Amino acid sequence: MRLCVFGDSFVNGTGDPERLGWLGRATAGARGVTVYNLGVRGDTSADIRSRWRAEAGRRFVPHDEGRLVFAFGVNDCCDDDKGARRVARDATLDNAAAILSDASARWPVLMIGPPPIAEAAINARIEELDGALAAAAARLAVPYCDVFTPLLANEMWMADVAAWDGAHPGADGYAVLARLFTVWPAWRAWFPDNED
Amino acid sequence: MRLCVFGDSFVNGTGDPERLGWLGRATAGARGVTVYNLGVRGDTSADIRSRWRAEAGRRFVPHDEGRLVFAFGVNDCCDDDKGARRVARDATLDNAAAILSDASARWPVLMIGPPPIAEAAINARIEELDGALAAAAARLAVPYCDVFTPLLANEMWMADVAAWDGAHPGADGYAVLARLFTVWPAWRAWFPDNED
Repeated sequence: MRLCVFGDSFVNGTGDPERLGWLGRATAGARGVTVYNLGVRGDTSADIRSRWRAEAGRRFVPHDEGRLVFAFGVNDCCDDDKGARRVARDATLDNAAAILSDASARWPVLMIGPPPIAEAAINARIEELDGALAAAAARLAVPYCDVFTPLLANEMWMADVAAWDGAHPGADGYAVLARLFTVWPAWRAWFPDNED
Repeated sequence: MRLCVFGDSFVNGTGDPERLGWLGRATAGARGVTVYNLGVRGDTSADIRSRWRAEAGRRFVPHDEGRLVFAFGVNDCCDDDKGARRVARDATLDNAAAILSDASARWPVLMIGPPPIAEAAINARIEELDGALAAAAARLAVPYCDVFTPLLANEMWMADVAAWDGAHPGADGYAVLARLFTVWPAWRAWFPDNED
């Protein structure tokens, strides 16, 4: 399997001094799976929509199965330099529908929702978007993992995020996030022998 | 710092069940450095030449310094399905010169040579190419790390590579490779506090 994971800084693992992020932890032990971490700091759904096909195309090969994971939304909800929301809610949903319908027509696809950060006003936007993204994924039969709800209630995550730059956790927070996937049936179906 | 590392499966960390590869190990602890692992299995110098600018362009930002590392050569030396060398020696050197001159005109750049695998005939090609790549990098004043020579003499690396698929090591081999960088002055200048 060749797994391409597209997203933002949370996919990249920004802030993890152990350099594993959630993706390294949630795929550990699966030696035969080739993992491509294609998280880019600051990326919105629009950025990912514009690059995922080209970058996946250079990584998938005819002789091995390709699979995709998408995880975005936090940057869409943040304000730009002028104080305007970077991507309007409906534009995010349009990007998500375009990405997921295009991707799921050709490859198995999972989607992971946006996590909470250390700013209540942004979290209110993320929470609303999370529900709308889950509905959009459901319409396309793409399995969607809500991480917002469990992480908002997780003291480790919220403390870890607040302790550094207000958005990114360290090793402990990424381990919490990884465990949400290793118990998620859709993830477990892809990584049945995951040791995490 | 935003670090983009372009290369092949050895950059990707293919075969490491701990999902760190050499790059995760050699950058561990540097929490403020954003690392983009842009290694792609099977990529030759021609593949990297065709994609590095677009992929780096989507990851570098005006408000943070960008740096680049390139590591390729093994796939160039392998044969294709018809038994022909995938990339001729002079074409590899032309690709390397184009990549390094273009990149080093705009960003700080390091280059890492190709490692030995478990096939003597291919290793003979790699060893010859390694010397030529080192000379090409020297002409452009790009620091070059020869890993072929120390790894060929390293029993851990050679045993690890032979044990799985004949090309890729596991966690032990990647740890050996990472330590070559953490003692390399050019790497240490970029990661002075690396804990590895």
